[in-house]
Parts: sequence; structure tokens; C-alpha cells
Amino acid sequence: MKFSELAAWICGTPADLSDFWQATGLTGAQLSEKLDPEISKAVPFAEALEGSVTLLDSLKKLSALAGSEASAVILPKGAEEKIAADGMKKWNPKGIALLFSDAPYQDFAKIVSRFDPPIPRPASGIHPRAFVDETAKIGPNVTIMANVCVGPNVEIGSNVILHPNVCLMEGVKIGDDSVLFPNVTVYEKCVVGARCILHAGVVLGAYGFGYDSSSGRHILSPQLGNVVLADEVELGANTTIDRGTFGSTRIGEGTKIDNLVMVGHNCQIGKHNLLCSQVGIAGSSSTGDYVVCAGQVGLADHISVASHVIIGAQAGVPGNLTEPGTYLGAPATNIQEMKRQFVAVKQLPEYWKTLKALAKKEQEAAAR
Amino acid sequence: MKFSELAAWICGTPADLSDFWQATGLTGAQLSEKLDPEISKAVPFAEALEGSVTLLDSLKKLSALAGSEASAVILPKGAEEKIAADGMKKWNPKGIALLFSDAPYQDFAKIVSRFDPPIPRPASGIHPRAFVDETAKIGPNVTIMANVCVGPNVEIGSNVILHPNVCLMEGVKIGDDSVLFPNVTVYEKCVVGARCILHAGVVLGAYGFGYDSSSGRHILSPQLGNVVLADEVELGANTTIDRGTFGSTRIGEGTKIDNLVMVGHNCQIGKHNLLCSQVGIAGSSSTGDYVVCAGQVGLADHISVASHVIIGAQAGVPGNLTEPGTYLGAPATNIQEMKRQFVAVKQLPEYWKTLKALAKKEQEAAAR
Amino acid sequence: MKFSELAAWICGTPADLSDFWQATGLTGAQLSEKLDPEISKAVPFAEALEGSVTLLDSLKKLSALAGSEASAVILPKGAEEKIAADGMKKWNPKGIALLFSDAPYQDFAKIVSRFDPPIPRPASGIHPRAFVDETAKIGPNVTIMANVCVGPNVEIGSNVILHPNVCLMEGVKIGDDSVLFPNVTVYEKCVVGARCILHAGVVLGAYGFGYDSSSGRHILSPQLGNVVLADEVELGANTTIDRGTFGSTRIGEGTKIDNLVMVGHNCQIGKHNLLCSQVGIAGSSSTGDYVVCAGQVGLADHISVASHVIIGAQAGVPGNLTEPGTYLGAPATNIQEMKRQFVAVKQLPEYWKTLKALAKKEQEAAAR
Repeated sequence: MKFSELAAWICGTPADLSDFWQATGLTGAQLSEKLDPEISKAVPFAEALEGSVTLLDSLKKLSALAGSEASAVILPKGAEEKIAADGMKKWNPKGIALLFSDAPYQDFAKIVSRFDPPIPRPASGIHPRAFVDETAKIGPNVTIMANVCVGPNVEIGSNVILHPNVCLMEGVKIGDDSVLFPNVTVYEKCVVGARCILHAGVVLGAYGFGYDSSSGRHILSPQLGNVVLADEVELGANTTIDRGTFGSTRIGEGTKIDNLVMVGHNCQIGKHNLLCSQVGIAGSSSTGDYVVCAGQVGLADHISVASHVIIGAQAGVPGNLTEPGTYLGAPATNIQEMKRQFVAVKQLPEYWKTLKALAKKEQEAAAR
Repeated sequence: MKFSELAAWICGTPADLSDFWQATGLTGAQLSEKLDPEISKAVPFAEALEGSVTLLDSLKKLSALAGSEASAVILPKGAEEKIAADGMKKWNPKGIALLFSDAPYQDFAKIVSRFDPPIPRPASGIHPRAFVDETAKIGPNVTIMANVCVGPNVEIGSNVILHPNVCLMEGVKIGDDSVLFPNVTVYEKCVVGARCILHAGVVLGAYGFGYDSSSGRHILSPQLGNVVLADEVELGANTTIDRGTFGSTRIGEGTKIDNLVMVGHNCQIGKHNLLCSQVGIAGSSSTGDYVVCAGQVGLADHISVASHVIIGAQAGVPGNLTEPGTYLGAPATNIQEMKRQFVAVKQLPEYWKTLKALAKKEQEAAAR
Repeated sequence: MKFSELAAWICGTPADLSDFWQATGLTGAQLSEKLDPEISKAVPFAEALEGSVTLLDSLKKLSALAGSEASAVILPKGAEEKIAADGMKKWNPKGIALLFSDAPYQDFAKIVSRFDPPIPRPASGIHPRAFVDETAKIGPNVTIMANVCVGPNVEIGSNVILHPNVCLMEGVKIGDDSVLFPNVTVYEKCVVGARCILHAGVVLGAYGFGYDSSSGRHILSPQLGNVVLADEVELGANTTIDRGTFGSTRIGEGTKIDNLVMVGHNCQIGKHNLLCSQVGIAGSSSTGDYVVCAGQVGLADHISVASHVIIGAQAGVPGNLTEPGTYLGAPATNIQEMKRQFVAVKQLPEYWKTLKALAKKEQEAAAR
């Protein structure tokens, strides 16, 4: 496909290409075969060779343009002025075809999808190899794929997709428009909101890790609660959320959780949290809204974290965090104090020298 | 249901309610509609509103009673004396109906189960959509649900439950009364004891991570061993235990392991251990009995940890721990020493000031 | 089986045992019933009792021989000279039957396999309970077991084994001779090379954890890329690798990844890496060749790690590592510097004493 055709499609002006040519910052006289190259694929910047269109999504990276082998590049709007001011020779000596966009990321996504269209939503219906208990209530336009197991008294809303091998145990409820990828397990009585995405291998509602050990053996706690996901929750692959002891372990609306995360029994996670991969939250802890935990963070049990707290990667949180702000390290500490500590520890060996020298001089002085 | 009915059921005295009324610490004259409220559900303390019975399981939390909206609260026995001594006005100004119990946790569990009965054990039998190899030996009263795969020469004891999508590869043995939740995989020749619980996504017996890299490529070690779980072992969701190289990776009797834990090849884990979520134990390491590893702890390979060792969250254990006790940090260090280090590091920036001031004075003195 | 028979089989000289007897370092006169014991099983050293053959794979452990109850032990070749020099009485007072081997590990593996033969490769063919879309292309000699789901336009090379419950979504490609264990999920369009091993519960191609949060809600990034595994990649149980945003998340040839590892979207992992259990690599990061990450290491997003870097257990890498070498701690630091810091921190409490004493003397001096 010619670049001009692609650009016109993106700009929404198929009949009149003048907008596009203006958008390139070039005059008509500069048009040439080179400036309207044949494009056969859309790939990330580092992989772009001749015949590719790619994306440079930040003005800060504009200097990388000169070294690219790409045939065409989508750039953010501000690039136009910069290139106009300094000249094509400086920023684009190879004369790569350019398209300036208000929404470069979204436009590039459209182009990528044009060359390699995403797989469409599977057709609705229940696969003959799925097993759906006769007492389950299935909403309209639901897709249930092969080897899915739907237990007694399950309720599934409209437009839900259950990929192969999903297992919903007795009494589970799934809200409208949610998607459960392969091998997801939802234990009895758990509730998934609307527009949720549960990636492959997610386990909702396994038993909480609570034991009465007073007898010298570990006797499992009651497991009478469940897990409740609010609307628009997303859970990454192989993430696990344990059921409450008596009540519900809850994940708030719009909260997104990455792969291999553990949320313990009875936890109450707020709205719009971001929990990155391998975070672990022990039982009965809670977070406010807009909390961010970077990768591998650990939260102790029975603690609460205030809204708008950001916790750095691998930090360990042994107690409540009551103030918004950024925390690092273990025990997690306010970022300013933590940075001072990091610097101090790094300088330790040098300071010992100073201290020893002082001590020696003092001894010598005392000996005199 | 009236609270009096519930309380009588718990106290086991349906005919004569006098025990119950005594138990409340109230005289007959205080009985009223308010003290015998209608109860429609049982929920955790933080969620309890009118019409709910709830649990306050610790005397230390007794002051929270005054702020509760619950209609009835189960309390531990000692609360009776405390309330009697200080008066209802102080501890229970709203006149919430109270039930004092020797076993408040267990009694509340009974009440929760009465309002929302747990799902009963599934009926025994082999689901028509399960696949069981004809050479497998299946004990009495076994439940094998849809899409389960049981390979050749597998042996399954009595009363075992295999939830949907469980896969048992050739030669696996499962002891009596064990429960395997959905999507559990047990590799060939692995052995599960009696009364074990394996949660969804558990993988037993995948290959150990051992390679001969002398040729510049990584050549996989032999994978001729297996995994052996003793009786009453419980494994959390998506936990993985790798098979031994030549012998067995072993988990001792009564040991409980939380979600997303890794136990490497050849490990020998003792009895009645508690391994919390996201713990990782590298290959060929061993633990004694009653070892506790808190969340995200890491143990190096080829080390041993003595019985009755407790290791704090996120600690890293690079070598043997030969003495019982509590260990924190990385490298894991005795708790007393570690606390001194934590304090010292925190005070570092302040101490630098002292040191610098001293050094300056010394220089000034030397210059005089 | 007699030990002599086993040894002759290993030495490949069934007709003439003289080589074997030479190999034991014993003269014919020393032959006896004891030196040719009956062997009924092959087990690891710590478990070896009478009737067992076992392995002592390192000369450093030779002194353990004297305490063993084993009937026969395989030893590395150098042991022969050591025993000859110091005498049987010192090293082998019980007269355990010995076999000296150039490749003791491999020979012992052969013996273990003889007593307990590994399960043979399952027969090729498509199980009647597997579901294979009619548009999928299946190579010769492929084994597809029960409950496997193969989606539209999937391409599977020759000799591939798909264990039960594997799910391959639309457009997936699997190279020759690869093995996918139970409950593996491969999302649409992902590519697995030749001779790869994917252990149970692996998830390839779930959505990357990238959101546009500028609106106050977290809006998922495009998920238009895929995952590409080169040849001879091995992935441990329940490991997850997320799909690229626009391009491919890539794992290089010969790289081995342990259980419960997370590799984020857009990552470019080099050749022959070893990533141990519970390692987490955040999005868009890259590694060179022969990188080793020990257990629970975390790498931040958008960083690069040079070839031949080794990163110690639990280390946290916040930025680029441009030089080969070994790095420890968080933030990951060159091993020499890190060891100095470790020592310094450990000595802190003692140094405070020195510092305080100095300060006190200085004050006293100033007061005079």
C-alpha cells in the first residue's frame, strides 16, 4: 500500500490528500517516490526497516529519526514545528516519509491493526464440548467455548466470553461483557463484575491461608466467604485472590492487577489501584483508591494503605501507611528519607576511614 | 430469625432459653424487642448493619462495640466480666444483643453457615465427560468431575474429589480423602498423601531447573525423580513443586503452603511447616519441623534450616540456619541483631552530622 | 540384580568383566559376595541403604562414603587414585562396592532409569476428546491428548506433544519437537520455536500491563503484538510472558526460564539466559546473551542488561547494567562494592560506640 493511501485513511480524507501533504510539512514539489513509499508492515521503532511504517511516540526521541531505516514514521504533532524550525536535513536527512498526528499512539495502533487485523470476537453460543449445568442461567449473546465447566446455579450476564477450560464452580456470578481467558478457575459463590477481564490461569476464591495452630497441628480456618470483583477489574495471568473467612475479599472498581499477584483472604482493595506483577498482599489488609504497588511489593497482614500512596518496586510494608506519597524500601519509608538512607549506606565505607582516622588521632593525642 | 432462636441453637439448649439470657449478662427485666432482634444475615464486623449478627473475636477490640450498627454480636467469654464490671452504658450503649461464647470464632462460623450454607460435597461418580484410562485404579466413593484426565496406572484412594480439568499423568497416586481443585496438574509418578488439599492451578512434578552448561548451551539434567506429599499437606493456588533429579522432592506431614510458592527440585521440607505466599525455596534445600516462612521469603539452594525457625517477610537466606529463632532481612540475620542494624541505618544521616562536626573540630584544632 | 551385572552393563562390556574389576580398583582376590552385592534400587546418597546403589558426584564429598549404608556407590574417576593412595580402610572401611566413572552423573542416571524406567513418549495421534479446529494444520507424528483445544489457523510442527487441557488460541504456531505440558495457554498469534518445553500452567501472550490513566480511569493499551519464543526455550510451571503492544515480546534461543517467572510486554530476552524462579522483568526491558538472574530478582521497565551479567538472588535492578559482572542487592550493585556495604552495615552498631565515645571526649575536652 502507498504511504499516501495509509495517511489519507488515518487522516480521514481519502478524497483530498492536500491535508496529508500539509501534515508532512513538505511542499508539493518535494513529492517523490521516496516520500510516498510502498508500505507493507507496521512494526515497533527498533525493528523498522525499508517497507515499514513505525512510531516515534515522544519528542524526546526525535534524534533517533536520523538513524532509522523505516520508510515512514508517525510523529507527535509538536515534531512538525521542530523539524520546520531546524530543517529536514538535521532531523530527517534520509527523507523518511512523515505523518504528524495529534494521537500518534492511537493512529499507529489503527495502522498496525490494518496490516494485521486482531482476531474478531468469537461467535456467541455454547460449544458442544462445554459442560453447562442445567440450573445455570446464561444471558444473551454469551460465548462458551470448548471444555468449559459451568456448575450449578451459576449466573452469567450478557455478552460474556468464557474461553476453553474455564471452570465456574457452584453459585458463581459473572457480570455483563466480562471475558475469562483459558484455564481460569472461579470457586463457589464468587462474584465477578461487569466488563472485567480475567487472564489465563487466574484463581478466584481458593481457601485463605489461615490456621489455628494451638494444638500443634495446623487446623484450617472456616472458608465461608467469597471474592467479589467490582466492575472493570482486570486480573493478569496466574494471579490468585483468596476467599474471605466469613465475608468477602473485595477488589474495587477499575482496579487493574498484573500477573502472578497474590491478594490474601479478607483484603479490601480500593478503586483504580494498579498492582504490578508479583505483588503480594497478606490477609485482611486494605488499600484506598488510586494506590500503586510496583513489582514484587509485599504488604503485611491486617494493615491499611491510604489513597494515592505509591509504593516502589520490592518494597516491604510492615504497618499502616496513612499519608499519600511515595514509599520505598523495606520497611517502606517515605522516598525523601529513604534516598538519604541509600546515599548514607553507599558512603559508609568512606566514612569509616574518616572515623578511624579521627579515633587514631584522638588516641595519639591522649597518649601525648 | 429471632436472635434468641439463633443463640439457643448455638448454645444447644433449644427448650430452655435461661442459659442464653444468663449468658447475655442481662436480667429478665431487660428483655425487650431490641434485645431479641430479628437477624437476617451474619457478616464480618466492619460490614455489620441492622439485621446482622457479627463477631468481635478479641477483648482488645471491645471498645469498637459502642460504634457498631450490628443488631447482635458474638463476644469471647471474658467480655462478660468486663461489661458486668463497667456497666452496659460504657461498653454497649446502644444495647446491642450479645452472646458470650467460649469459642466465639467457631460459633460464628456455625451461624454464618446457617444463613449461607456451604456447598455440599459433590456426589461421587465419574462424570461422563471425564477421561479415565482403563488401567487406572479408582477407590470407592470417588468424585471425578467433567474434563478430568486420569492417565495410565494411576491409583486413586477412597473419597477423593477431582474437580474439573484436573490432569493426573501416568503412574500418579492420590491418597484417601484428598481434594484436587480445578486445573491441578500432577506429573508422572508423583505421590499425594491422604487428606491433602491441592488448590486450583497447582503443578506437582514439573522438571527441576538444573542444567549442565559446560558446552555453552544449557543441557537439562535428568528428571528421574518425583514429588511426594505426606498426609495432610495443603498447597495454595498456582503453587509449584518440582520433581527430584534422581529421588523425591518431599513435603512433610501437616505442612501448609500458600499460593504462588515455589519449592525447587530435591527439596526436603519438614513436618508442620507454614510457607506463606510467594516464598521461593531453591533446589536441594531442606527444612526441619515447624518452620515458618513469611511472604516472599527466598531460600538459597543446598541449604538447611533447623526446626522451629521463623523467617520474616521478604528475608533472603543464603546459608544454613542451625539455631531455632526468628530471622529477618537479607542476608537473614537473628532478629535482635537485625533490629539493631535497622535502627542504625535509619540514624545514619544524623550520625554523619556528628562525625563531620567532629572531623571539622579536629582539623581546626590541628590548624591551631 | 548383581552389582557386577549392573557395572558391566554400564561399562558396556557384558562379555568380559575384567575392565569392571579393574575399574573398581580391586584385585581379583578381593572379590567376594560383599563386593558383588545384590542391588534392587538406585536412590540419592542421603537415602541409600542396603540393597541400594547411589551416587557420590564430587571428590569433595568422598569422606561421606565411610558413613554410607549403601551397598554400592558410583564415584568420579579421580576417587580411584585417592583411595588407592590412602587405602580402602581409610575411605571405604565397610567395603562398599565401588564403580569409578568418567561420567558418574550420566552413568547413575542410566542406572536409575534401569530400575525405574521413565514413562515413554505417548503414542502419536489426536485423542477423540481433543478439539481441533478444522482449519488447523497438524504436522506428522503429533500427539494431541484429551481435552486439548486447538483454535483456527493454528500450525503445529512435527513430533509435537500437547498434553491434556492445553489451549492454543487462533493463529498460534508451534515448532517441531516441542512439548507443551497440561493446562498451558497460548494466546492468539503467539509463536513457539522448535524443541521448546512449556511446563504446566504456562501462559504466553496475555495482555501487557500498560494503561493510559490520564482520564482518571485506567484505559488498557493496544494489545496488537505477540510472543515469540526462539528454538530450545524452556519455560517453568506457571510462568507468564505477556504479548507486545505493537510488536513481539521475544525470548532468545536456548534461554531457560524457571517456575513462576514474569516477563513483561515488549521485553527482548537474549540467548542462553537463565532466569530462576519468581524473577520479574518489567515491560520493554532487554537482556543480552548468557545473562543469569537468580531467584526473585526484579528488573525495572525500559532498562537493558549487558551480556554475561549475573544478578544475585532478590536483587532489584532499577537501571541499565552495561558491564559484565556479578551484581547484588537493591539497587543492584557490583559485587565487590556490595560486599563492602554489607560488612559496613553489619558493623554499624559497633562503630556508633566509637563515634559516641569520640564525641564525648571531644565535649569533655572542649569543656575543660
